[in-house]
This record gives sequence, C-alpha cells and structure tokens, in this order.
Amino acid sequence: MASKRAASPAPPASPSFSEVVEAEGHLIDSQILNVVFDTVVRRGAAFEVLKFSIGRSNDEPSFISMRISSATEQGLVEVLEELVALGCRLAEPQDATLKSADRDGCVPDDFYSTTNHRTLVRHRGHWTQVERQRMDAVIVLDQGRAVCRKLRDVRTGDQVVCGVAGVRVIPEFQERDRRGFAFMTNEISSERRVEVGVERIAAMIRELKASGGRIAVVAGPVVVHTGGSTHFQELIRSGFVDVLLAGNALAVHDVEQALFGTSLGVDLDTGKSIEGGHRNHMRAINAVCRAGGLREAVEQGVLKSGVMYECIRHGVDYVLAGSIRDDGPLPDTIMDLRAAQDRYASAVEGVGLVLALSTMLHGIGVGNMLPSWVKMVCVDINPAVVTKLADRGSSQTIGVVTDVGLFLHRLAQRLRD
Amino acid sequence: MASKRAASPAPPASPSFSEVVEAEGHLIDSQILNVVFDTVVRRGAAFEVLKFSIGRSNDEPSFISMRISSATEQGLVEVLEELVALGCRLAEPQDATLKSADRDGCVPDDFYSTTNHRTLVRHRGHWTQVERQRMDAVIVLDQGRAVCRKLRDVRTGDQVVCGVAGVRVIPEFQERDRRGFAFMTNEISSERRVEVGVERIAAMIRELKASGGRIAVVAGPVVVHTGGSTHFQELIRSGFVDVLLAGNALAVHDVEQALFGTSLGVDLDTGKSIEGGHRNHMRAINAVCRAGGLREAVEQGVLKSGVMYECIRHGVDYVLAGSIRDDGPLPDTIMDLRAAQDRYASAVEGVGLVLALSTMLHGIGVGNMLPSWVKMVCVDINPAVVTKLADRGSSQTIGVVTDVGLFLHRLAQRLRD
Amino acid sequence: MASKRAASPAPPASPSFSEVVEAEGHLIDSQILNVVFDTVVRRGAAFEVLKFSIGRSNDEPSFISMRISSATEQGLVEVLEELVALGCRLAEPQDATLKSADRDGCVPDDFYSTTNHRTLVRHRGHWTQVERQRMDAVIVLDQGRAVCRKLRDVRTGDQVVCGVAGVRVIPEFQERDRRGFAFMTNEISSERRVEVGVERIAAMIRELKASGGRIAVVAGPVVVHTGGSTHFQELIRSGFVDVLLAGNALAVHDVEQALFGTSLGVDLDTGKSIEGGHRNHMRAINAVCRAGGLREAVEQGVLKSGVMYECIRHGVDYVLAGSIRDDGPLPDTIMDLRAAQDRYASAVEGVGLVLALSTMLHGIGVGNMLPSWVKMVCVDINPAVVTKLADRGSSQTIGVVTDVGLFLHRLAQRLRD
Amino acid sequence: MASKRAASPAPPASPSFSEVVEAEGHLIDSQILNVVFDTVVRRGAAFEVLKFSIGRSNDEPSFISMRISSATEQGLVEVLEELVALGCRLAEPQDATLKSADRDGCVPDDFYSTTNHRTLVRHRGHWTQVERQRMDAVIVLDQGRAVCRKLRDVRTGDQVVCGVAGVRVIPEFQERDRRGFAFMTNEISSERRVEVGVERIAAMIRELKASGGRIAVVAGPVVVHTGGSTHFQELIRSGFVDVLLAGNALAVHDVEQALFGTSLGVDLDTGKSIEGGHRNHMRAINAVCRAGGLREAVEQGVLKSGVMYECIRHGVDYVLAGSIRDDGPLPDTIMDLRAAQDRYASAVEGVGLVLALSTMLHGIGVGNMLPSWVKMVCVDINPAVVTKLADRGSSQTIGVVTDVGLFLHRLAQRLRD
Repeated sequence: MASKRAASPAPPASPSFSEVVEAEGHLIDSQILNVVFDTVVRRGAAFEVLKFSIGRSNDEPSFISMRISSATEQGLVEVLEELVALGCRLAEPQDATLKSADRDGCVPDDFYSTTNHRTLVRHRGHWTQVERQRMDAVIVLDQGRAVCRKLRDVRTGDQVVCGVAGVRVIPEFQERDRRGFAFMTNEISSERRVEVGVERIAAMIRELKASGGRIAVVAGPVVVHTGGSTHFQELIRSGFVDVLLAGNALAVHDVEQALFGTSLGVDLDTGKSIEGGHRNHMRAINAVCRAGGLREAVEQGVLKSGVMYECIRHGVDYVLAGSIRDDGPLPDTIMDLRAAQDRYASAVEGVGLVLALSTMLHGIGVGNMLPSWVKMVCVDINPAVVTKLADRGSSQTIGVVTDVGLFLHRLAQRLRD
Repeated sequence: MASKRAASPAPPASPSFSEVVEAEGHLIDSQILNVVFDTVVRRGAAFEVLKFSIGRSNDEPSFISMRISSATEQGLVEVLEELVALGCRLAEPQDATLKSADRDGCVPDDFYSTTNHRTLVRHRGHWTQVERQRMDAVIVLDQGRAVCRKLRDVRTGDQVVCGVAGVRVIPEFQERDRRGFAFMTNEISSERRVEVGVERIAAMIRELKASGGRIAVVAGPVVVHTGGSTHFQELIRSGFVDVLLAGNALAVHDVEQALFGTSLGVDLDTGKSIEGGHRNHMRAINAVCRAGGLREAVEQGVLKSGVMYECIRHGVDYVLAGSIRDDGPLPDTIMDLRAAQDRYASAVEGVGLVLALSTMLHGIGVGNMLPSWVKMVCVDINPAVVTKLADRGSSQTIGVVTDVGLFLHRLAQRLRD
Repeated sequence: MASKRAASPAPPASPSFSEVVEAEGHLIDSQILNVVFDTVVRRGAAFEVLKFSIGRSNDEPSFISMRISSATEQGLVEVLEELVALGCRLAEPQDATLKSADRDGCVPDDFYSTTNHRTLVRHRGHWTQVERQRMDAVIVLDQGRAVCRKLRDVRTGDQVVCGVAGVRVIPEFQERDRRGFAFMTNEISSERRVEVGVERIAAMIRELKASGGRIAVVAGPVVVHTGGSTHFQELIRSGFVDVLLAGNALAVHDVEQALFGTSLGVDLDTGKSIEGGHRNHMRAINAVCRAGGLREAVEQGVLKSGVMYECIRHGVDYVLAGSIRDDGPLPDTIMDLRAAQDRYASAVEGVGLVLALSTMLHGIGVGNMLPSWVKMVCVDINPAVVTKLADRGSSQTIGVVTDVGLFLHRLAQRLRD
Repeated sequence: MASKRAASPAPPASPSFSEVVEAEGHLIDSQILNVVFDTVVRRGAAFEVLKFSIGRSNDEPSFISMRISSATEQGLVEVLEELVALGCRLAEPQDATLKSADRDGCVPDDFYSTTNHRTLVRHRGHWTQVERQRMDAVIVLDQGRAVCRKLRDVRTGDQVVCGVAGVRVIPEFQERDRRGFAFMTNEISSERRVEVGVERIAAMIRELKASGGRIAVVAGPVVVHTGGSTHFQELIRSGFVDVLLAGNALAVHDVEQALFGTSLGVDLDTGKSIEGGHRNHMRAINAVCRAGGLREAVEQGVLKSGVMYECIRHGVDYVLAGSIRDDGPLPDTIMDLRAAQDRYASAVEGVGLVLALSTMLHGIGVGNMLPSWVKMVCVDINPAVVTKLADRGSSQTIGVVTDVGLFLHRLAQRLRD
C-alpha cells in the first residue's frame, strides 16, 4: 500500500513512506480539513496538498487530494487509519483486506475498528454499505453483506475487514441551519435560552412522528424526583414515545410514587423529606415482585398510574437494564448485561431520534449503539454530563443544560399546542 | 466576669476559669444545643449542665443552664463569644461594656462583632433592641439607641460595645412547617421537585404582598440570557417587585436585548450565536450614554422595552452596583462601591423577602446586609452557588437549584393564576 | 401494641392511638432528638416528653422517654417505623414478630426494612445482633441467628421480621473529634483545605493497616485519565489496597494505557488528544480477549504494567462489574449483575475502610452494601457526586472534593513518608 | 463602499449589495474559513469564492478572495463588520473613516468596536498598529497614533474610527504544537491529566522569566481556603509573580490566616470549622485599618506572614479591587471601580502571562483588558468557571479544571526542581 519514496535530498529524519488520499464534501464547514491537518502534524507525519478545489458557494462541495508521508511504515499506517475514520480514502481504489477470525471473540491485530458514521466497504470491485452501523465494532463480510459486529459476537472463521484499504467513511456534515439546530450542537451551556431549544425539539418530534419516525427515550430516576413524571406520562399517552430505555431505578421510583406518593424519601406532592422513605422503596419492589412483574402488577390492578403503567397501557416497549447499585431488582430488569445491551440495541434500531433525560450511564450506553445520523437530545442540569454525552464521538448530540422536570413540563405544553 | 474556680482535685491541665450561661427556646429543634456542645469541645473547654428542662411538646420551649470552663481566661472569653453569638447569655445580667473608638474606622480589639440575628444590648439596666441589624458590624450606643454600624462608618469617640456582657442574641428558630418551607432549607439539590418549590414561593410572595410587605429582587444577567426576561417583566408589571438590585451587566444585556434582540452574542429569539455580538453590547452602552442614562433613554423613546424599562415605567426602584468586569459602565451604575453598598443597604431596609436570581456576587452582597428574619430565596442552576449563598451565615436562605429562565416562567404562571 | 387513649377533652382531630418509646445515648450531639421531633410533627403525630435526662458533660449519655400519639393506628405504625430506624425502641419489650415468606423473593407487606446501623432483634426474650448488616434488606431468623437477607434471596418459608416490635437500632454516633474526622463529614466543599484531609486519610489508612484491617478501593476510569494511575499502583505495591472494586472501563483504560500509552483518545504522557484513540481502546480489549483474560495476559507477558497488573502481581483481589455502557467486555468482567453484586458484597465483608475514587455508580453500589460503622472516603472533583454518595443514608461518608489524580499523588507521598 | 450589483437573472429576494473581501494566513488551521462561511450564511448573506490557494504544507499560508453579497446595504455592513473582526479585509484598500465624538463618553453610532486581536488602521495611506489593544473599546486617532480607548474615556472631539474601511484585524493563529499547548485550549475537562498541564505551565513560566517577561497572577480567596497560600507565597519569594491582582477578600482572608490561623471560619491547620470565624475576619480588618493599611501593618510588625506580606516584602505590585460583597474594606482596596479598572489595566500592560486562580469575577475583568497574544491560564475546580473564562472572546485561555490548592503545590514543586 505504501510506496517507498525515491531517494531524495531530504534530511536524514525525513519521511519516506507515503500514500495519496482524497476527500470531498463540505470539507471546510465540517472542519474536517482542519482535523486532518492536525492529525498529520500530531502524528509526526507530513502532508503535501496535490490538488484542492473549494466550493464556490455554500452548496458546492470541496475536493482535496494530498500526499501523506511518514518516516516509518507503521507511522504511515497509523495516520492513515485516523484519516480514513475522518472521511479520507486512499486515492487508488482497492478491495478491503479480509482476514479470518482465529478464535471466538477475537480478531486479527490490524482489524478495522468502526466509527458511527456511514461506512462503505469495497468487495470484489463493488462498494457495499455496512449494515447495523455503530462505533467500536468490527466489520464482517458475510455472504456478500458487510455488517458491524461487536467483538464479543465474532466467531471463529468470520471474515473480518483489516487495515483501511477498501474502506470509506462518510461523516455526517453538520448541516448549516437545517432544522436550525446547528446553534446548539456546540453550545453546551446553561446560559442559553432553553425555551428556544424546547420549541425546536418539539418541532423536531412532531416532524419525525408526522413522517412515521420512531422516538426512543432514555430516562433516569431524576425524571421522577424532579416532578417530570406527569409530563412524561402525557408524552407517552400522546404517542410521542415509541420505546423507553431505562434502568431498574426509574421503574422502582416510578412505582414507589404510584403506590406511596414518595420517591426515595421525598413526598412528591409536598416536597417534604420522608426519613423512612427507603422503606417505601423496598415495599414498591416487594409489591411488584409479588405480582410477578410490572405488566402483571398492572393487570392485577396493583399498579394504576405512572410512567411504567402508561407504557404498558399504551403498548410502549420498555427495556430495563440492571446496574451494580440496583435494589431488588424488579423481575422486569435484565441483570445479564450482555442480554440488556442486545435488547437496547435492537430497541433503538431504526429510531429517528433519541431523548436522553438525566441519565449519563444509560445515555452513554445508547450513544455507543447509535449510527451518527440519528440525532440525540441530551437534557441534564449538570453541564458536565451533557458535555460527556456530547463528547464520546457522538457528534450528533444536542445538549440542553436545564432542569429536566421543568423541561418536560414545557415540552408537553409545546406538544399539546 | 470569669470566676477563678476553687481548688479542685482535678488533673493538672484541668479548666480553671468558668462562667455560667443560659439559653432558652426551641433548643433541640434549632440544633443550638448540639452546636453549643460542639463549640465548647472544639475550643478545648468543658461544659457541665446545671439545669435542663425540655419542652414536653412541640410548642413548649426548653431551658438550659450550664457552667462553661476553660484552662485560660482568654480561652473562656473566646468560647463565650461564640456561645453568645449562638443565643446563650451570661446567667448573671450585666450592662454592656462600652469603649470609645479612638480613631475613625477602627474599634477597640475586643469589640463585639454582630451576627444577623435579632440582638439586645443591656444599658443602664435596660435591654434595648439593636437597630439596623446586620452581620459583621459593631454595635454603637448613640443617645440611648443601639445601632449596627459598619466598621468603616465608625467615628472617633463612638461608644462601641465590647465583649459579650450585656449582649443577648435571639436566633431565628427554623420553625417547623410554618409556610412549609422547612423542607427546602436543608435540601439544596437539583433532584427535588422544583414545581412544589415554585408553588410555595408564589404563595409566599402573594401572602407578603397581601400584608403590605416589600420584595427585593437581586438579579444577574443570566436572567436575560436564559430567556427569563419576559417573565421577570411580567412580575414587575404585576407589582411583585419593589426594588431591583443588580449590576451593570444585567442592565446592559437587557438594553442590548431591547435594542438589538441579542444578549452578548446570542440572538434570543432564535438562540443562534452572533459572532459580532459584543458590538451590540457596546452599542447598547453607547446609546444609553448618549441619552444620559436609563431613565433619560426611556423618556427620549430610545428604550422601549425590557426589565429596566418596566422598572422605570412602574416606579420600581433600582440600584446598579459596579464591578471590575463591567463594560461601560452605564451612567446609572454606581462605581463607587462604598456608595453602592450604602444604596443597596437602604434599598433592602424593611423588605420582607429577597429573591436572588442567578447572581452569586450580588446575592452574597445582599445576604451580608440582611437581618436573619428576612427570608431569601436563591435560584441558580449551579448547586455550588446555592450552597455558597445558603452557607455564609445566612441561615434564612431557601435554595432552589434549577434553570432560572424556566423558573421565572413557572413563577409568573403561578402568580397569574 | 398501640393503646387506645382514654377519652380526653381534646379537639376532634386529636390523636388517639399512642405508644411510649425510649432512646438513650448522645441524643443531642447526634441530632437524633431533633430528627425524632421533626419526624413526629411531619407525620402529623404528636409527642409528649415523659422523662428526659441530659448528659451533664460530653461523656455522659442522655435518656428520653416519650409518648407518641397519632389519630390513626396506621399513622402510629408509620411514625414508629421511622422512630425505630432512628434509634428509638418501644418502652415495653416484646419479641420480634415473625412471619413466613409465602413465595420466593417476596415478603409479607409489613416486613421490617433494614437500615445500615447495628441492629438487635429480640427472640424468645433474648436480644441477638443481626449479621451481615446492610440497608434495604429484610431480617430473617434462621436457627436462632438473625441475618440480613436481600429481598431476592428470600425463599418461601423464611421467617421474616415484621413490624417494629422487638427491633432495636443502634445508630453510629458521630463521635466528636475521634480521629478528627468530624470536620469533614458535614463539609462537602471544594474550598476546604484538601491537604489536611489527605493527611488524616493517610493516618487513618496507616492506623487501620497497623491493626490488621482491610481496605477496599472502588475506582472509576477517571483515576487513569487524570494520571492518578502511577500513584494508585504505588499504593497497591505498598500493600495499602486489599481489594479493588471497579467496572469494565477502569480495566480497559488501564490496559490501553499499559499497551499503547493512551486512555480513550488522550496520550497520557503528553496530554495530546489522539483522534483515533477508540481504536486503541478496542485493541486493548482484543488483546486481553485473545489472552483469555487479565491474569492470562499477565502470565503470557502481554500485560506488563498498570493497575490490573499490580493487582494480579501482588495478589490483590479484584471484582469488575459490568454496565450497560461497556465495550467488550473483558473476560474478567462479570456481566451477570446479580453475581457481580454478590461478589462485591463478599469482597467488602469485614473491610475497615472503603476509598471511593471518582465513581458514583460503583460508589453507590458499594455504599448500599456497607454497615454504617465502616468509614467510606469519597473523592471526586464534582461536589454533586460527593453529596450524592454522602446522602444515600451512608452517614459514614467522608467527602473530599478535589482532583483525584493530584489527590492520589499526595496520598502516595504521605504514605511513603 | 458597497457596489450595487448589475441586474442579474436572480430570484426577487436575491442579494444585491456586495463587496469583495480577502484573507490570508492559516485559514484552515485557525478555522477562520469555517467561521467566515458560517457568519455569511447566518446573516442571510451569500459568498462566492473568487480565488483560493491552499498552503501545500503546514508552514505555507492560504489565501482567499470572496465576494460577499446581501439583499440590503445594512445587511452587507453588518456582515462585513463581523468578517473584519474575524480577519478579513476589504479588497480595495481605503483609509479608515474618522468621525468626531460629539459628547464625552459617547461615539457616533457606526463606531468600530475592537476585538482583542492585533489591529491595524489605515490613515493617509499608511497602516498603523493600534496601541493598547483590548476588546470592546473604540479606536481613536490621536496625533497620528491609533489607540484603543474605553467608551467612558472618549472626549468630545476625539477622532473615532467608524465602519470597517481601513481596518485590518490579525487574529492569533492557534499555532499547532508550539509550546505544546494546543492540546489544552480546547480541552476543558477535569478528566485530562493535570500533571502534564502543570509541567507545561511551569516550563512556560520559566521560559517567560528567562526571557525577561512579566507574570501577573489574579487570585481569589479560595487560594487561601484550599491551603494553596503557602505554595503561592513560595512562588512570590522565588520571583515568579510580578503583579498580584485580587479583591478585598483575598487580602482579608490572607491577613486573617496570618493573624489568627483561620480563614472565614475554618482553622486552616486542622480543617476544623470555627463557628465564630467571622469575628476573626472582622478583627483582621480592624487590625489593618488600625495600622493604616497593609504596608503599614507589615512595617509596624503587625502582619508577619502571608501572601500580602510576601508581596510587600518582595516588592510585588498588588492591586485590590472592591466589590459589592466586601467586608471592611481594607484601606488598600480601591472602592472606586473606575480607578480600580484603570489600575488593573496598567498593571497588566506588557505582561507575558496571566495566571487566574479561582476567581471568575477578577479573571473576567482581567481577560477583558488583555490583547489576544497574552496567554492566560485559568485554574478552577468548577468547569463552568473555566469555560466562561475561556469563552468571552478570550481565545488565548488555557483552562485547567483542578483543585487550586493541590495545583499550586505541584506548580511550586515543579518550579523548585
């Protein structure tokens, strides 16, 4: 792949392995060019621009061709791996290199590790789009189809894409002003006008539902603590939630509120702290366990209100994933985390929007599973949580730093209008 | 004051200076007893309970009499200073010790430093209540009246209360459940139900206004950034704000929004960031300077909307205090901080409630000036700010961790109902 | 249990069910009296102090006897449940009420839900201390022994303690000044002097190790990100860590740093961000999977440094619990959360101190499992995390708000001296 | 300035006022191109790239020439104002437009509002560099020299630059890797390795001092609370601090610690909270007032240690600016904020580095005064403060989220080596 350069009068330490790469699209708007140059310099490699044409107006794409050079072959390989992940491709088209997995759950050392961007793989001269796109997976060629597979799901003999030849990544461009969301993606701050954000999120939700899209909500127990529950239930009843992804805690606090009016020690109608509140927490768990599960509790008339009740009554799918801090858990909570991850992943397949409400843990979990073209709205009162969710390679994230209870109140109002 | 103890068979390092102090009231509920015991032990002193009677029910007061002992006279003095500040008094009544200030702005070394609690001073056998109660002041006896005076306002010859003899402090008891606010005072958290809090604050405001009370609002520029301005203006128009205490920034951002629709680089109707926004900031200042001030700008028709406009149109007094980070400043901003503090202090005299909205600096400034019986509601999205405001000896503070824009929206809705 | 009161001339809504309860100990210091009174009033019940004797000095205990009255029998039951959890006991001694569990994982509705405080149960006239004390469990009487059992571990026929008769809770008193830690327990703030805290924690660690005690460390991946890893490894090598409780992420980041010098996209020696860093993350997982696990990776010479390496080389037990956000996971990570909770619980049995470093999730998980007499030090740069850890009924928590990397640096220095 | 475009077959709403602008330099690396395009689109204007040449390697500059068009003349003016601030210039060179200020403290409406970047003004065909560069000022031409002047310092008759003709802004390019600081400028996070940051800041300080540069430190009282004082004093004694900018609070807390060993209620050697701590605070103020000021207190032997003491003994200039929350103040504190701002501004003139330690207020104040080529290191445990300081147009800011006490400890160690 790398061509040894002809003897040059360069200084001893000069780069001597090189490759020509190309990229096109909104290279400047998307800041890709900047990041590409940064990457090359940081890696101790060098770039030489061979050709560059800039889009003359906002609608026209740009094109660049550059020679990337590095002092070592390994260095060149590493910088190319980064550039391909950013959207560059080798100028000379080649088929992807396939190697067999020699053991379950393991792949060859030079495996290609996926991003969450749309990816194409070249096989027998044809470019195929990779299915089930997600980050941190490998690509397996299976009967002519290219599919993202988690490391642990790889089986001996699987044909795994290795290296960067024959791989093209098509990053999402941050489209200027489409839906007007550009403003928020880089603005994680509690000092921006939240009402403007709510309005647009409401518009986004309506638009998506109108076009038959599906919406997943990832929610933490804070939704209940902050009094957002009533408004969230309204969203469920109004058909704006297609799937609920949460943990054991949300469901327990929700049931506790439904049965006893408290949530971990706080009377939600008066806001007064109830010292013995944990007892209600445990009683709520006991009541659901006795019924045999949440659905059974609804059917038996034990559970008559709340978020889980509304989900069950309105046929909204829910997946509760266990965690090390869980009390109980409820019979519905999936404590085998491999199974929980798989259930989460199939639940978000095909959704058009994810709302993550006050839950870093489950929000990151879901973010890891999404392709980059699914928008994710993250709401949390803590700017650090929003930053973290927006940071983990999930460039598609829209962060809103605000009180989740009041946020849901406003969102429900907006969607009611 | 301290009586040398009779020779005792105590160990060598045993305390040998002692004094009897008493306290009465809701000693247990208010946790005073706990703090008193802590103080004594921390100071290396000792206490011996001479008499204790507990209130038999919630309405009855308790009474305690204790002998406090310390190994050194200085140690005893110091522990007594703390105990008196907590509400204990010397069992043997004495007149307060008065000493002359020997220099402007200075007092004798053993001056009594005030708390913000109601304080009585004994002079010629009579107990007089101290006027203009505030913390960190000295007490001056002036023609039979006892008044809190800031150190810098002390003049040579002023009769200053020294030591703790003849001083009685009457701390505010955290009344259980009156107005139902107890729940929040110790609960600074973003996970509590904000709507419950808003409801009670609205009730508190209505009740106070109904009884002819006055309300001061201390507000930071975040009120404008977060879109809370419209709702705040509604509160002003509806007569719920009697005085506005702020800095230069609030006024400038408010004028910028009124004139250009932006606030430090963000278009408030679309939420989009405006790179050249600072220019509007400076133009807003220039426009007000040209008019000669905010009131003049309103009169000349330059300023036609916004928080400052509503204040001026509805006769709401406002005081703008300068700071080191101010641009401009506006002609209205008081850049002499001594004058600004004095103006703030007279503006809050007699108010029954202070609302501090997203401003740590001015919130602390006002908190320092208030007697402990004036309630202060602090709203900020950052729990650290709320904690800090609630911490500085201002036990009267009610903290609400939430988005100030949405908070004002809900508060205005509640007060409209 | 509750005696109907004789007809009284009280107003119509007056309480009519009552019970006498007693408590003794450092009632004032521990603020128990205050909380007891609060609880009674909040519950709409009433108290009448029958007898009270106060400790005359700091070393003497106090004693109280009160009649608690409520308008309804259910109201009385509920307030008594809270009072018993706080350390009160019924004045008239009775055996605990035992009822059979009628179904696996379920208990009778009026089950006694445990606190994390030392608890005694009266059975056939004798008081027995409950074993495996932890919060949010039930108490099962099994061949004369009383044991805490998690709801999910209850089996049909188990004899479960119900109601509050025959139950005594002995809360930990916050001992004034023993080890001098009192100062920090209520002081969660980034503005306190951290170096003083580090010094005392070092003293506590040394003292505990000198007396043969065991120390558990709960650590999040931030320990690696912030460069605390080297110092943490020193603590392990020096024998200050007996068990490590963590998640998959800590181990993966640690291995990534050991193999590639990066941690999720940041070169840890230069601090420079590596765009392709996730690839190293996945490669690290692949390398450990290929070896068959962490121990195997060490034995095969694949893994030659890092936190996990030091644990394995120095025989430090480690438990890695899975979560919904995990990549991989490593073969060592326990993805069945029931098993993970059980392994965590047995790992912390008998430890004398827990250090929770930058991990809310696992910190809360461990906190739930500890009896209240095991001290827990929580270090995090985010005050909200420290507050949350200190809040969940874990009154034994010492919070330190600081940079965990620099904290470990200073702690290792102190322990080296 | 704007040329009406020839009749074109464009749709009715098409732009019809246009201007050609040029820019050169590291246009891609600096993301200027991206921001320029964004600005144009956001403003509803359009751009047409006329010429673009890209630097072939990292060292070569790029060049662009574009036609900017807008539907209205006012729209064109506004977009040009933004583009010039970003580093574009009108292609056709013109002299700057000068207008007379018609009133003290006021300028013509179309005044040019400065950025903090190096700026040139064209006067009589010559380009002159603007002196005393700072943001949010106006440019006055005075005897052939161009000078930044604050609005309030403008006097009637001053010749003020208006519009954007004849103005060139030369933004600081974020130089890739020089001093290796690039990594931190965009990385405000508590999860990055602070020790790496400390090492580089130490190198930067040494380098600057070696080349005769001056260093200003802006410090909040938290420096004292967190125990950073000793280490800060070491920096002063070692000559690493040339000027100290602070508020009244730092000095009072410092004196309180020096005289009484406490800082607002906390004994700094034991970390124990002192309830009566405010008294020491007031006594510290009284002691300095009695002496006549800090310098006098040092000379009279009243003040014998601390930050202020070391400044005075080592001839380090200090400026204390007042604020609304100040107690006292000390005689040294400048309560006239106009004077304080002027003193701050002259103190930072010519400094090569500013260290802002845990003070948002004074940090922003100083940030406003600095030209963009003076680096500013901001240290705070609260990420929001660091973000805010880095945000206000001060692109030169290096943010470190960490414990300021431990940070100073490490920095002093590093500078001692």
